[in-house]
Amino acid sequence: MDISFLRREFGDRFIEDKVVASLYIRDASFIEVSQSIIGVVFPEDEEEVVELVRWAVRNKTPLFPQGCATSLSGNAIATTPGLVVSFERMAKVEIDPIDGVAVAGPGVKLEELNIELARHGLFFPVDPGSVKSATVGGAIANGAGGMRGAKYGTMKDWVLGLRVVTGRGDTLKLGCRTYKCRNGYDLVRLFVGSEGTLGLVTEATLKLAPIPESATAVLAYYNDVETLVEDVVKVRANRVWPLFAEFLDAPTSALVGLEEKNALFLGVDVNTGAEERLLKKLRELIRGEIAQEAAGWEAAMKLLEPRRKLFYGQITAARGGVLVIEDIAVPISKLPDAVRGLKAVAAKHGVPLLLGGHVGDGNLHPATWYRREEGPAKVEKFIKDMAELVAKLNGTISAEHGVGILKKELARAELGETTLSYMRELKKLFDPYNILNPGKIF
Amino acid sequence: MDISFLRREFGDRFIEDKVVASLYIRDASFIEVSQSIIGVVFPEDEEEVVELVRWAVRNKTPLFPQGCATSLSGNAIATTPGLVVSFERMAKVEIDPIDGVAVAGPGVKLEELNIELARHGLFFPVDPGSVKSATVGGAIANGAGGMRGAKYGTMKDWVLGLRVVTGRGDTLKLGCRTYKCRNGYDLVRLFVGSEGTLGLVTEATLKLAPIPESATAVLAYYNDVETLVEDVVKVRANRVWPLFAEFLDAPTSALVGLEEKNALFLGVDVNTGAEERLLKKLRELIRGEIAQEAAGWEAAMKLLEPRRKLFYGQITAARGGVLVIEDIAVPISKLPDAVRGLKAVAAKHGVPLLLGGHVGDGNLHPATWYRREEGPAKVEKFIKDMAELVAKLNGTISAEHGVGILKKELARAELGETTLSYMRELKKLFDPYNILNPGKIF
Ligand SMILES: Cc1cc2nc3c(=O)[nH]c(=O)nc-3n(C[C@H](O)[C@H](O)[C@H](O)COP(=O)(O)OP(=O)(O)OC[C@H]3O[C@@H](n4cnc5c(N)ncnc54)[C@H](O)[C@@H]3O)c2cc1C
Ligand SMILES: Cc1cc2nc3c(=O)[nH]c(=O)nc-3n(C[C@H](O)[C@H](O)[C@H](O)COP(=O)(O)OP(=O)(O)OC[C@H]3O[C@@H](n4cnc5c(N)ncnc54)[C@H](O)[C@@H]3O)c2cc1C
Repeated sequence: MDISFLRREFGDRFIEDKVVASLYIRDASFIEVSQSIIGVVFPEDEEEVVELVRWAVRNKTPLFPQGCATSLSGNAIATTPGLVVSFERMAKVEIDPIDGVAVAGPGVKLEELNIELARHGLFFPVDPGSVKSATVGGAIANGAGGMRGAKYGTMKDWVLGLRVVTGRGDTLKLGCRTYKCRNGYDLVRLFVGSEGTLGLVTEATLKLAPIPESATAVLAYYNDVETLVEDVVKVRANRVWPLFAEFLDAPTSALVGLEEKNALFLGVDVNTGAEERLLKKLRELIRGEIAQEAAGWEAAMKLLEPRRKLFYGQITAARGGVLVIEDIAVPISKLPDAVRGLKAVAAKHGVPLLLGGHVGDGNLHPATWYRREEGPAKVEKFIKDMAELVAKLNGTISAEHGVGILKKELARAELGETTLSYMRELKKLFDPYNILNPGKIF
Repeated sequence: MDISFLRREFGDRFIEDKVVASLYIRDASFIEVSQSIIGVVFPEDEEEVVELVRWAVRNKTPLFPQGCATSLSGNAIATTPGLVVSFERMAKVEIDPIDGVAVAGPGVKLEELNIELARHGLFFPVDPGSVKSATVGGAIANGAGGMRGAKYGTMKDWVLGLRVVTGRGDTLKLGCRTYKCRNGYDLVRLFVGSEGTLGLVTEATLKLAPIPESATAVLAYYNDVETLVEDVVKVRANRVWPLFAEFLDAPTSALVGLEEKNALFLGVDVNTGAEERLLKKLRELIRGEIAQEAAGWEAAMKLLEPRRKLFYGQITAARGGVLVIEDIAVPISKLPDAVRGLKAVAAKHGVPLLLGGHVGDGNLHPATWYRREEGPAKVEKFIKDMAELVAKLNGTISAEHGVGILKKELARAELGETTLSYMRELKKLFDPYNILNPGKIF
C-alpha cells in the first residue's frame, strides 16, 4: 500500500500514530473494536476528497468517513484496517437568510450552525440529542432525527442539495439551491441516510426555518407510561400537533435529576399572544401532573433540556453492563400498544427495560443490557420479539440511528430480499470497489 | 405481440378502439402526437400491474403510465405505439387522522383526498393549479409543486412510503408508515419525480398536515413586476415567511377577470387571534395597492382562486400560437434579477413574454409563443439565454413540471454528463428493458 501519497499530500493532516489513530476507530455504540488502522486523514476541500477516493481505489483500501463519531449503531466504526477520513476541517458555512438556505461543509457542527442562524432569527430544525457534537455530514449520512421530529421531521426533509464524491471518484452535484427542483432523478434522499456507503458528502445545501414567534410547553409527570402515551395520542386526536412530545421513564428521569416519575415534555409552537390559550388547552387535555410550564421559544427549549440526557441516564442505569439501545417507531396511535407490548416482551425474557424517546413521532428507544459474563442470549430473544411486535404495529425497527452494524439483521428482515437486492445493486453502482464504509448496512 | 392476454385479463378494462385510445396519447403540453397505440388498460390492483409489466417485458412493448394527463412537459405522452396504463381505477384511500397519514391508490385525485381530509381538520399541502384533476400517482411521478410551496415544499416532502413495481416486474415496498424511517437506503425520493420511468406507483403513504387555525392574506396590485418581486424579498427579509406568495402579471390578470395590473397574492398562516396583527404587518411591508384582504383559512384560500387560472390566461393570450411555458426557480433573493433579466432576453429576441408563478419559492413560469408558420427559432434563442440567466442566478430550469420531453436538453446542460451518466445507470437498474415511459427525461 502506498502510504507515501498520504504523507506527501496531507502532511500533518495525516495521523499515523497508532495511539492517536486508535481514538478514531469507535463510535458511541457499545461495539468493541481493537484492530489497528492505517491512520486518520483530515481533508480540507473536495479535491482532496477526490484524491483520497482515487488512492483508496488504487490501493483497494477502505475509507471510513467520520463526523464526530456519535453514531449509536456502529455506523462510524473502522471495522477493518483502512483509513479514517475525518471531515472536521471542512467546516465552512454560508448563510442566506432571505433564501432560507445554508451551504455547509460536512464538518460544521449542528449547534454551531444554529448559533450562526440565531442572529438571523432562523434555525436548523433537526435536533438530535447529540446536537452539540453532531456534524452536518454525519447527520446527513445518518439521516438523523431528534427532539423536534414531531413537527419538523428528519434530515431527509431538510437537505436541498448535496455535493458528493462517489466510490468511483466522481463528483456529483445533486438537487438545487431552490426549494423546488426537478432536474432529472432526485438523488438527494438516497444519500441522506446512506451512512457513507455510497459517497462522501463534501457540501450540503440545507433548508432553514424561521424560529417560530413563540411557543408554549409543559413538563408533566405520570405514574404509568401507558397513560403518558395515551395522552400523546389524545393531544393529536384533539388536533394539537405538537412541536415536540418527548419522554423519559421514571428510572431515567430520576437519574437525570428530575422526579422519579415518567416525564412528558410537551411543546407547541404558536404566534405571540396565543401562548396562554394553547397552554390552557394542554392543561385540559393531559392527565399528568404538570410540574413546569413555559411560554416563549427559548423557555420551551430550555424546558426540554433534561430530556437530552436520556443516553446518559441509560448508561448510568446499565452500571457497566453492555447497553443495547433500540430505535423503533410506530404510528402514533399505536404507542400504547407498543409500550404494553414491550413491557410484556421484556418481562417474558427477564431482561431490564428502560423506555424513553421521541413519542411525538412514535419513536421509542427501548434500552436493555446484559453482563458480559452472562452473555446476550436473553437480550437477543427480547429483540426478536420486539421486532415482531413492531412489524405487527406497522412500525419500523430503525427510526433514526441508522443500520450501521447493529441493525443489519433487523433491517434485512423488515425490507425483504427483493428490496434488499436492489439496494445492493445501488451500492455497486456508486461504490463498485466497496471502499466506502464497507460492512455497514448490508 | 400477444394482445389476447390483455383482452383475456382485462376484459372491458382494456380499450382497443382507436378513437377512444387516441384521447389518451396526449397531455396538457402543446406537443403534437398522432401515432396510434395498442390501447389503454385500467388495472385495478397491484397484481394486475405486475402482470402488465411482465407482459410488456415479454412483448418488448412500452407502457405509458397516466394519472389525469395534466402534465405540461410531455411527461405523460405516448410517444411510440405502446400501451397506456391509466391508474384511474386504483383510487382507494385510507386515512388515519391521529397518525397524520393517508394510504392512497395512485388514481386518487388530490382534490378528492382533500375533501376527505377536511372532515378531520387535515389537508394534503401540495396544491398544483391542476388540483381538481391531478392524481396522487401523477403528482408523485412528477414531483409536483404548486400554490403552497413557499411554506410546504413539494411532493418530495410529503411522501413517507411507496409501493412500486419496477421494470423488472418486482414489487418494492419503500419507506415507512412512520415519519421517522431508516431501514436501508431511502428510495422514496428517487421515485418522486421519476416520471414513471423507474417504476409504477401502486400505493403511496402520504404525510398530512393539520389545517392551520387561521390565516390572513392580501391581494395587492403593482404597476411593475420588479416592485412586486422586490416586495416578496422584503417580506422574507422582515422574517415573515409566507404560506403563499403567488403572482399574475398585468395582461394575464386582466384575462382572468382581475384588474390589468400585476397581482400579488400573499398569505400567512397564523393562530386564531393573530390575524389582524399580521395583516397590519403585511400592509406596512408591501408597497402594492391592496385590493382585497382576507382573514381565516377558507377566506385566504378563496382569495387565491383567480391565481389558478394562470394557464388559462396564458393559453388565451397566445391566441392559437404554440404556447411555450417555462418553469424556472431562482433563490428568492434573486427574483428581481430574474425578472429584469427575463424581460431583457425577451426584448432582445423579440418574443412575447408573460410572467406569473409561485414567487414565494422563487418559481416563475415565463410563457412565450410563436405562430406555427413562423417557427420556433426566436423562442429557442430566448430559452437558451433564459437558461444562461438562470444558471448565473444559481437557479434551476426545471422547478416543478418535470423534464418530460420538453426540458430534456435544458436538464442535460444543467446536470452535466457525469451526473447524467449515473442517472442513466439507475434507469437501467430499475428498468433494464426500457419499457417504462421510454423517451422521457433522457
Ligand atoms: C447522546 C446521544 C444522543 C443522540 N441523539 C440522537 C437523536 O436524538 N436523534 C438521532 O437521529 N441520532 C441521535 N444520536 C446519534 C448521532 O448522534 C446522530 O446520528 C448524529 O447526527 C451523528 O453525527 P456525527 O457527526 O457524530 O456522525 P458520525 O457518527 O461521525 O457519522 C455518522 C455516519 O455518517 C458517515 N459520515 C460522516 N461524515 C460523512 C461525510 N462527510 N460523507 C459521508 N458519510 C459521512 C459515517 O461514516 C457514519 O456512517 C445520538 C447520539 C448520542 C451519543
Ligand atoms: C392548469 C394546470 C395547472 C398546473 N399547475 C401546476 C402547479 O401549480 N404545480 C405543478 O407542479 N404542476 C402543475 N401542473 C402540472 C400537472 O398538473 C401536475 O404535475 C400533476 O401533478 C400531474 O398529475 P396527473 O395525474 O395529471 O399526472 P399525469 O400527467 O397523468 O402523469 C404525470 C407523470 O406521472 C406518470 N405517472 C402517472 N401515474 C403514475 C403511476 N401510478 N406510477 C408511475 N408513474 C405515473 C406519467 O407517466 C407522467 O410521467 C399544472 C397543469 C395544468 C394543466
